[in-house]
Amino acid sequence: MPETQGKPIECLAAIAWEPCKPLDVTTVIVDPPQKGEVRVRIVATALCHTDAYTLGGKDPEGLFPCILGHEAAGVVESVGEGVTSVEKGDHVIPCYMAFCGECSMCTSGKTNLCGSVRAWTGRGVMRGDDKPRFTHKESGKKIFHFMGTSTFSEYTVLHEESVANVDKAAPLDKICLLGCGVTTGIGAVTNTAKVEKGATAAVFGLGTIGLACVDALATVGASRIIAVDTDPGKHARAKEWGATDVINPKDFDKPIQEVITEMTNQDGVGGVDYSFEAIGNVGVMRAALECCHKGWGQCVIIGVAAAGQEISTRPFQLVTGRVWRGTAFGGFKSREDVPKLVKDYMGGKFRVDEYITHTMKLTDINTCFDLLHAGKCLRCVMIAD
Amino acid sequence: MPETQGKPIECLAAIAWEPCKPLDVTTVIVDPPQKGEVRVRIVATALCHTDAYTLGGKDPEGLFPCILGHEAAGVVESVGEGVTSVEKGDHVIPCYMAFCGECSMCTSGKTNLCGSVRAWTGRGVMRGDDKPRFTHKESGKKIFHFMGTSTFSEYTVLHEESVANVDKAAPLDKICLLGCGVTTGIGAVTNTAKVEKGATAAVFGLGTIGLACVDALATVGASRIIAVDTDPGKHARAKEWGATDVINPKDFDKPIQEVITEMTNQDGVGGVDYSFEAIGNVGVMRAALECCHKGWGQCVIIGVAAAGQEISTRPFQLVTGRVWRGTAFGGFKSREDVPKLVKDYMGGKFRVDEYITHTMKLTDINTCFDLLHAGKCLRCVMIAD
Ligand SMILES: [Zn+2]
Ligand SMILES: [Zn+2]
Ligand SMILES: [Zn+2]
Ligand SMILES: [Zn+2]
Repeated sequence: MPETQGKPIECLAAIAWEPCKPLDVTTVIVDPPQKGEVRVRIVATALCHTDAYTLGGKDPEGLFPCILGHEAAGVVESVGEGVTSVEKGDHVIPCYMAFCGECSMCTSGKTNLCGSVRAWTGRGVMRGDDKPRFTHKESGKKIFHFMGTSTFSEYTVLHEESVANVDKAAPLDKICLLGCGVTTGIGAVTNTAKVEKGATAAVFGLGTIGLACVDALATVGASRIIAVDTDPGKHARAKEWGATDVINPKDFDKPIQEVITEMTNQDGVGGVDYSFEAIGNVGVMRAALECCHKGWGQCVIIGVAAAGQEISTRPFQLVTGRVWRGTAFGGFKSREDVPKLVKDYMGGKFRVDEYITHTMKLTDINTCFDLLHAGKCLRCVMIAD
Repeated sequence: MPETQGKPIECLAAIAWEPCKPLDVTTVIVDPPQKGEVRVRIVATALCHTDAYTLGGKDPEGLFPCILGHEAAGVVESVGEGVTSVEKGDHVIPCYMAFCGECSMCTSGKTNLCGSVRAWTGRGVMRGDDKPRFTHKESGKKIFHFMGTSTFSEYTVLHEESVANVDKAAPLDKICLLGCGVTTGIGAVTNTAKVEKGATAAVFGLGTIGLACVDALATVGASRIIAVDTDPGKHARAKEWGATDVINPKDFDKPIQEVITEMTNQDGVGGVDYSFEAIGNVGVMRAALECCHKGWGQCVIIGVAAAGQEISTRPFQLVTGRVWRGTAFGGFKSREDVPKLVKDYMGGKFRVDEYITHTMKLTDINTCFDLLHAGKCLRCVMIAD
């Protein structure tokens, strides 16, 4: 294999030319990493709802043409000047949530949000020169990055702040899921809500994130895990993952928050200690808050709602002690925590492999989107040749 | 003075016969306390916005005719069977937020809400027999209780769970304010938000509760206290209380949350660590959330909004780390904490006397309401003869 360091690489990538159109798997030219950047060969990438959300034109920040993809794992091909945390051959997980350890957000000790590269990743470019590293070979057009990751490409370029260096012994085709969904669900329970043993909880939406919440809740020892989904096809898996009750809002002629409050009634007061919204539906976000126990129940919003949509409730819900909060990447500090999560995965501390319902190639990516829209997959993982 | 124990007492009370009408100061018959009840001679009672809110017909739970009033102090006249925590002659503060120490809420250790008497106080009656203890002398009509306190009467009857036994050395005409507003503002800062030294904060609304927030923030050592009110007449006092900045939303042509975010901008990210809404306006509640710092800012809702009104925001505000919560009675456990607050007041730990702008008689109560509606008072205290 010829030496590629310092040279552009020609490879396949799936370009999203415009919203709501199938992706175009075509040849791109990937520039070498500049100062502080890392070029990674993507070995496995999964499809997540956020990719579909942006492709669907629902993301006001969505830029086209772009290369989507943010849940992946790969091998460092080369690094730019000054990069010290990874080197060629290292196994890595790209992190859409960067972690620099030095900005005012990182040093606050209060959040996992990092301000280091957001100003550039939000505009689809790299910090060094305000430009993307991708060019469509045929037309010569520049192609924007997405979420600072753009993993629907055989090679991608990342800021060093977005690269987690992980154990080489871990299977890349599995741990790619730790780049988004599984990590987010686990962290929502353990970092954001800090659920304690014996607590009661409700989880809305039984896709990968919701199931990861159920998994974490069962591990923590929650006494009641009420899983909620309108698709009965998702119910059996939630039970298997550890849900104590699985309910379908369509089976009731009253609001689901009332159903849950009644199910958990003790001494005349009902409601769960914690709830998690893993759908992105603002109506469900309200139900998730209102099914919380008076005095202390906390609702954690995980799902991403369509642009312009708003959540509402009566302020009385908050004045009587409920807390409304949210989580991004499950509160994990990506570069610091993802390597630990990989170790925990290898120690069998939570499910990962079980979310992979389909394994394909990057050339099958439009089929993956079809499966996602039809609700027929949890995670489709595309593996490099 | 004749012995009154066990006998009905005739005295003056201010009856609210119907919403939006002046109160009728007239003679009522106050029944003796039954089992678990305490009859109190009210020595001083202040007027709070919640009284005006209910009289204004905005409280969906408001019952008429009733005797309003919930911020007061007095002396125990007699106690019913089984009452052990107070006896005749004790100085007490009626607490609309009961504390029994035994219900599932009280024993949770997670909230100051108590479930012991709420089912009855919400219906304007006493637990013993589901009836009020007040009768209008002239018509013989039964008059409902309000918030379990009904302090706009020379005598009132309370559940033992609603009576805080306080130091007899404390001036009743001052510590009556610890029955609601001052306590709520202090507790919102110290219990609910747990503001730490050096933190930044914004306070919306500079009435008694908002000023009590400012006072507590200054005591805690907040580095920035941004006080907000559309009435410039309230600005000087906020400065005196310790606000570092006082702003009027009318002075800006952009939303106040943007103004505050810019005022607090550091490294390109702005927002306060904590915000407090002490008005009861749902639009301001949104601004209070949205002026919080990304990643960790917490908004505490204190004000009570009109029935049917809802708060809204984009869920992105929460997903990026802001927290929306509320407080009732500042998170204080009434019977346990109010006596400690009285001691702290005597130790000069916070302002109380300074909120009293007018001192009157119960017969002046409609003048007090006029002053309140005109924004011309902080607290009007009505003192018994
Ligand atoms: Zn994702
Ligand atoms: Zn950072
Ligand atoms: Zn009040
Ligand atoms: Zn209780």
